[in-house]
Amino acid sequence: MTGVILDRCPSAGIVDICHLISARNIAQAARMLEVSYPYFPRRTIHLIVVDPGVGTDRQILVVEAAEHIFIAPDNGILTPLLHSKKLQSCSRLNIGEEQAVSSTFHGRDIMAPAAAKLAAGTAVAELARLIDPEKCVTISFPSPQIEKNRITGEVTAIDHFGNILTSIRADHISAMNTALEVCIGKTTIRDIRTAYAEVAPQSPVALINSRGDLEIAVNAGNAAEKLHCKVGDIVVVRSCQYR
Amino acid sequence: MTGVILDRCPSAGIVDICHLISARNIAQAARMLEVSYPYFPRRTIHLIVVDPGVGTDRQILVVEAAEHIFIAPDNGILTPLLHSKKLQSCSRLNIGEEQAVSSTFHGRDIMAPAAAKLAAGTAVAELARLIDPEKCVTISFPSPQIEKNRITGEVTAIDHFGNILTSIRADHISAMNTALEVCIGKTTIRDIRTAYAEVAPQSPVALINSRGDLEIAVNAGNAAEKLHCKVGDIVVVRSCQYR
Amino acid sequence: MTGVILDRCPSAGIVDICHLISARNIAQAARMLEVSYPYFPRRTIHLIVVDPGVGTDRQILVVEAAEHIFIAPDNGILTPLLHSKKLQSCSRLNIGEEQAVSSTFHGRDIMAPAAAKLAAGTAVAELARLIDPEKCVTISFPSPQIEKNRITGEVTAIDHFGNILTSIRADHISAMNTALEVCIGKTTIRDIRTAYAEVAPQSPVALINSRGDLEIAVNAGNAAEKLHCKVGDIVVVRSCQYR
Repeated sequence: MTGVILDRCPSAGIVDICHLISARNIAQAARMLEVSYPYFPRRTIHLIVVDPGVGTDRQILVVEAAEHIFIAPDNGILTPLLHSKKLQSCSRLNIGEEQAVSSTFHGRDIMAPAAAKLAAGTAVAELARLIDPEKCVTISFPSPQIEKNRITGEVTAIDHFGNILTSIRADHISAMNTALEVCIGKTTIRDIRTAYAEVAPQSPVALINSRGDLEIAVNAGNAAEKLHCKVGDIVVVRSCQYR
Repeated sequence: MTGVILDRCPSAGIVDICHLISARNIAQAARMLEVSYPYFPRRTIHLIVVDPGVGTDRQILVVEAAEHIFIAPDNGILTPLLHSKKLQSCSRLNIGEEQAVSSTFHGRDIMAPAAAKLAAGTAVAELARLIDPEKCVTISFPSPQIEKNRITGEVTAIDHFGNILTSIRADHISAMNTALEVCIGKTTIRDIRTAYAEVAPQSPVALINSRGDLEIAVNAGNAAEKLHCKVGDIVVVRSCQYR
Repeated sequence: MTGVILDRCPSAGIVDICHLISARNIAQAARMLEVSYPYFPRRTIHLIVVDPGVGTDRQILVVEAAEHIFIAPDNGILTPLLHSKKLQSCSRLNIGEEQAVSSTFHGRDIMAPAAAKLAAGTAVAELARLIDPEKCVTISFPSPQIEKNRITGEVTAIDHFGNILTSIRADHISAMNTALEVCIGKTTIRDIRTAYAEVAPQSPVALINSRGDLEIAVNAGNAAEKLHCKVGDIVVVRSCQYR
């Protein structure tokens, strides 16, 4: 894909954000995109190839939002943008017949050439046709269950430090005004902190991380191993009124 | 290596194609090169450092082919180019005495400086001396056995999706005009498709992939795990005349 | 971090040296930095985010040395420079209050913006205040024990080929004028070579590697597996006077 882009637009600057999305995990890719793209310059072209439907009749979207451009399969990856006030336009890529196109790697054969054309100055409207964003595929994200004094979410990912990422976000928690504790497996962690090193080395810590999500870590250790935790495990935030 | 190149040619654009070649696997590197380089712009300098013979008297080649330039140890990595009509010139790199050269990392100490000089405009003839390509080391690739109504190949690699890559290429198969089935281990797969999603989720599928090779996958699943398959296993394509 | 830098300094060239430092391993990061930076062009800005103390009151350093610039947490990563004659200036980054700053990712929120400003031409003195380098945190590296005719060191890392890196350096060894042997676990290796391929395939070999360190490898094989070796194991270099 890098070769294809540089061949058509030699001045393009190309950045690999992430090659660590689990295979075919559209929700994980969507979340990664949502938290990454705002840090890039306006008019950046974001090309996302998590594409389990490659070779079927699934369409390819070209979306403008928040003054960025996004090219991705119409499979839900762009859900956070399609449902957002930041959406500026939603189009379907015109796919010509002229190229030799594989049925297993449209990232290389269709999406990268389109990205290169946009990078070289072609307008979105020359490559794609406006569609109703309501007609695009969207996905639902694991949404925590909110009760009085209790939020029930789940582990969404383990990062390479062994830190445990959850589906619970800062704004879910900020509505709870009492002292809090976080339960995962057999472990209960008092209070939600702001930094790993606020607890002793090898102690578990719950905090709001740099994405704005609840994260469970072990200071200077591997939380997933130490707490015997895996993706999908239940995480509960609750008031601890009796301490 | 990146630092060495940028120090000598600050305007060079550097792309890492792949760091996932198995250690010392020259055949895998050669095939990766063969399927990747044509997507890059003409005059791209391709630097390939799979170099188990570093520190011996193996030579370093500078090859021009298909209007690209290749720098690699003379160990067979460039076999697909040396045996090709696309070959334009084949030279041996002149290795000076002036630099501090390690005996374990010629990629950094010899090949990267040569690549930087070429990128900065030095002609190949100033760095290397023409040799007879027949004198270069070449390797033989695992070649499928072709019989009447039957092709016997092998698994050459498993990709990070668990997809199974084989030594059988599209042109081997296109010579067979009957309905086909693919056998791997205890699994028989009817027909050769063009996309993963042509079969039901979790079902095995055989298809010609974006490299033009026979690939065995599981739609939305991990084929190597599901079919208990590893590199070196036998793969058979045969006519299924009786169905 | 890449997005943050490009947003503020679009002309910056960004190179990822290494994402394979073990989690929180400051000594490994310090050694990687020490052997890598000299290959980059002068005035390169090196940004090192191995930062287990993020969110505490640990400071962030901006160091000029050998005509390069380094930004890193004050946790010992820059020890090889702070103790060196190459040190030109040592400053502490001024951290403003204006930005939205997470407590878990200062690489993105504080260090990358500072790197971008330096890349765009801001002087170090505008971003940071000179301090006494003696007040910076430093670490001690695993230092081999030197006796008459015997050096005792340890395994510091295993690379992705399975090669065994040690704490013993070329200058430790060059002081010993006799024939040498290297002992690791139950294996004794005669002589210190200069290239992997100086011994038969699958045989162990001890050599000075491209970093200038003693390395133990197996020609065309995986030394760590074959010699049952792990990080922290003892390595001895001794005279073999009786052979």
